Amino acid sequence: MANPIDFYFDFSSPYGYLMSEKIDPLAAAHGRSVNWRPILLGVVYKTTGAVAMPLVPLKRPYALRDFERSARFLDVPLHIPEAFPIPTQHAARAFYWLEGQDPGRARAFAHAAYRGLFVDGKDISQLEVVLDIGAGLGLAREQFAAALGSDAVKERLKAACSAAIDAQVFGSPFVIIDGEPFWGVDRLAQIERWLKEGGF
Amino acid sequence: MANPIDFYFDFSSPYGYLMSEKIDPLAAAHGRSVNWRPILLGVVYKTTGAVAMPLVPLKRPYALRDFERSARFLDVPLHIPEAFPIPTQHAARAFYWLEGQDPGRARAFAHAAYRGLFVDGKDISQLEVVLDIGAGLGLAREQFAAALGSDAVKERLKAACSAAIDAQVFGSPFVIIDGEPFWGVDRLAQIERWLKEGGF
Repeated sequence: MANPIDFYFDFSSPYGYLMSEKIDPLAAAHGRSVNWRPILLGVVYKTTGAVAMPLVPLKRPYALRDFERSARFLDVPLHIPEAFPIPTQHAARAFYWLEGQDPGRARAFAHAAYRGLFVDGKDISQLEVVLDIGAGLGLAREQFAAALGSDAVKERLKAACSAAIDAQVFGSPFVIIDGEPFWGVDRLAQIERWLKEGGF
Repeated sequence: MANPIDFYFDFSSPYGYLMSEKIDPLAAAHGRSVNWRPILLGVVYKTTGAVAMPLVPLKRPYALRDFERSARFLDVPLHIPEAFPIPTQHAARAFYWLEGQDPGRARAFAHAAYRGLFVDGKDISQLEVVLDIGAGLGLAREQFAAALGSDAVKERLKAACSAAIDAQVFGSPFVIIDGEPFWGVDRLAQIERWLKEGGF
């Protein structure tokens, strides 16, 4: 079995969302599994000194247009919500807590959170909204809420962000295949060729 | 005849170089001409507050790898020179002066400058190197040198950078088709679809 692919993303990243709709079937078509790794770009940007593209004055109008055009290009539904970008620590912590219990459910949660934000306009920065999404997946609300407030899960997310920085991750989505890094959903065609040819 | 395509680039931009090898035949296949518009990203970045990707610590190794991988992906020869990025005002001024005399020769100069830098490792930040490239295209060296030092051509480049900022250009390459902006050589597939379908 070939190495799994690492897929880093922030739940507030539209390009990360687009990648989340594409990476699993693409990987599976080439006999690969995918490690989903939510991170907080704000933590990463503290290291790189970078600024989110939608927060740069001249880039914001372009970014908003490109998000929606890229979604049409990839045939994925997308609507950028009014409040954007947003903090996503609750969603990321939820993912890691779920992953420790049931990786399949963690993946289902990630899709539900991303689609909730970028299709249905749910404000997943709100803890209650994340708990609702969990409830929709059959999670006991009290237990889920307690888990998300625990020090253990906070530390788990911190460790994931540190590991991402150690792996030279500086944006979202960021995909690493056998040590080869690909930044951006616009690298999908290169990723496909890389998987097909084993590098190029 | 459909509107010409505007193609903004900095002569120090590897992704701009890759676009320079692709945009004319792609445009011609869809009945379009291309206005080449060299700019100085340093001037643009003063407005946006952006920093060139190869100058951001965590991004530089990725950028160097991605430049060469993207070149292989697009089947264009590329070698990043030791001195990089470099200032490119001499090359950009040369382009605009030549464009006023003979647009075909300006295009030939742009290709020669880009290929000189990214294929043959010529340091086109040096005035003498730009004059050599002009000589290779049959330009009288004394006259070319005088033109590049003139206030008129300096003002022409300043005006081109201001016009680019007014057109919301913030990077290289930056392609505008009927008002639709595309940033990056990684938007080539979207540009092709846009030209084919008249938008999507």
